[in-house]
Amino acid sequence: MNSASDLGALAHPAATPAALPTFDDVLAAAARIAPHAHSTPVLRSRTLDALAGCELHFKAEHLQRAGAFKFRGACNAVWSLPDATAARGVVTHSSGNHGAALALAARTRGIPCHVVVPHNAVAAKMAAIRAYGATLHHCEPTIAAREAACAAVQAQTGAELVHPYTDARVIAGQGTAALELLGHDGRFDALVTPLGGGGLLSGTAITAAAVSPATRVFGAEPAGAADGFASLQRGERVLELAPDTVCDGLRGLLGAPNFALLRAHRVEVLLADDAATVQALRLFWQRAKQLIEPSSAIALAVVLANRERFAGQRVGIVLSGGNVDLDALAGLFASA
Amino acid sequence: MNSASDLGALAHPAATPAALPTFDDVLAAAARIAPHAHSTPVLRSRTLDALAGCELHFKAEHLQRAGAFKFRGACNAVWSLPDATAARGVVTHSSGNHGAALALAARTRGIPCHVVVPHNAVAAKMAAIRAYGATLHHCEPTIAAREAACAAVQAQTGAELVHPYTDARVIAGQGTAALELLGHDGRFDALVTPLGGGGLLSGTAITAAAVSPATRVFGAEPAGAADGFASLQRGERVLELAPDTVCDGLRGLLGAPNFALLRAHRVEVLLADDAATVQALRLFWQRAKQLIEPSSAIALAVVLANRERFAGQRVGIVLSGGNVDLDALAGLFASA
Repeated sequence: MNSASDLGALAHPAATPAALPTFDDVLAAAARIAPHAHSTPVLRSRTLDALAGCELHFKAEHLQRAGAFKFRGACNAVWSLPDATAARGVVTHSSGNHGAALALAARTRGIPCHVVVPHNAVAAKMAAIRAYGATLHHCEPTIAAREAACAAVQAQTGAELVHPYTDARVIAGQGTAALELLGHDGRFDALVTPLGGGGLLSGTAITAAAVSPATRVFGAEPAGAADGFASLQRGERVLELAPDTVCDGLRGLLGAPNFALLRAHRVEVLLADDAATVQALRLFWQRAKQLIEPSSAIALAVVLANRERFAGQRVGIVLSGGNVDLDALAGLFASA
Repeated sequence: MNSASDLGALAHPAATPAALPTFDDVLAAAARIAPHAHSTPVLRSRTLDALAGCELHFKAEHLQRAGAFKFRGACNAVWSLPDATAARGVVTHSSGNHGAALALAARTRGIPCHVVVPHNAVAAKMAAIRAYGATLHHCEPTIAAREAACAAVQAQTGAELVHPYTDARVIAGQGTAALELLGHDGRFDALVTPLGGGGLLSGTAITAAAVSPATRVFGAEPAGAADGFASLQRGERVLELAPDTVCDGLRGLLGAPNFALLRAHRVEVLLADDAATVQALRLFWQRAKQLIEPSSAIALAVVLANRERFAGQRVGIVLSGGNVDLDALAGLFASA
């Protein structure tokens, strides 16, 4: 499942971030996306609590529109634009959940959306993006080709670039999931989210610090794509890592603003290998009957692998998405 | 997925049924199981409504305890027993959802449960039954061996036999799902449930006739196990059919009391082949992110295949269960 096509868009996050988003930005995002995004339910399971030895509260972002939390950030970015800018549309380069989320967000505002995808992207994902009304632009599966294609679309249309996770509007939008979770279910000892580029995790850290400072925030990162873990250890971003994981949504390198936010909020990263992630996914499918994707299951995997860290605690887990490639399931289960 | 081990328990329903259950029995069952069973949610999907051309309300019995509606009937049977009878325990022969449901129901009352399973039953299913605290009794995978083993357990322990779908207490319990659906969401033009042995469908028919007589009740049956369809056409039970379908919960032959109830309530049976069922399953997994089993997806399949019958209507679908054999998924998707 690890292919170059999933990496290009995420390999070159902006080196010089704009101002970091704040909790006020999260609050503004919550108001802005409320008419469009689902306030997703929080799921419980007695069986999983017993297995984990703690109290698990699952924020069900796989039931978010377009099937992932990504819609929150994309929607906030789209509805943050002044009318004149919005009219020129938005553009991104992502063949994954962000591409579909931005396409749907643009449709909620009735503006054009352009998505640059490598010609070898998964057909089902491209079909989903097209179904939401976006225009696809095909390019070679290299970083240079993608950036060139994206720049060409911007030059030609004046569309606004919305990066999947370094964009401050996107980070603020992702922080609204934790806002709902903390508002809905009160005090938590810990929040755990998956870590790829860091949009969801840094947004969560902003929210937790403001709403519930005693809550510890953890990122769950694939052992085979542990650049976030290494970056926080080393104190500077590690950019030379080649990801190898079944978590196709977590292959991106930690973004610069995301890194700054994780450091500032003392977020800790826990690793899980793919076998543990697929085992957690199977467990959740079987017990909760919810079709989450591997990039979501990793958050449960790290909790199960670190029982002593969470023993007896009240733990919130963000189930980030449910866009599973059903044609690749046999390979997924065989890999564990 | 079609194996003799799944058929034995269901091939010889009682030839002479006891008194047929009535709506009063359904009401009594609802009160009896309320402390133990989940009142499952009703799910909606704009996308699926658009695809089906009607308004679909999904009663989420895959989120029922033990993962299927079967817990309702099993729980009603267990809690119907006088104390002295209950103390001797219950017994059934089913390696599927009913076996697990009866085991869990017995545990809610703290009484013994015996489940006769063929020695070639799926290991994961036997483990689930054992995890709920039941005693497994292995036998040869023939109908005669099963019935003999069951009789031996009864003789030895005095345990009460609870048949998966001909038992009047079981039928009344299954009727509580429709009771919740009709009570929760008001008037429906149609209710659709899967049809195997007919416990769920006949219970649904009893409830609908009493609560909402104008609501049409439909059974969804595999084209490869269409004994229910043939029985209603012919006006007598067709018992010589050898089932061949991926819907492992629907391979049983229509029971005698179930047949009588379906006739009395003029229930209509619609067929779907396995390809249509697997397509509906994939659609539901992808869109609703809910892990339903093939035996549930068939109800959606028949609605999608009969658009003109349901056009513009308000349709309730009972998603009967979510116990999917994840190790057999590759074969499942390849078969479509």
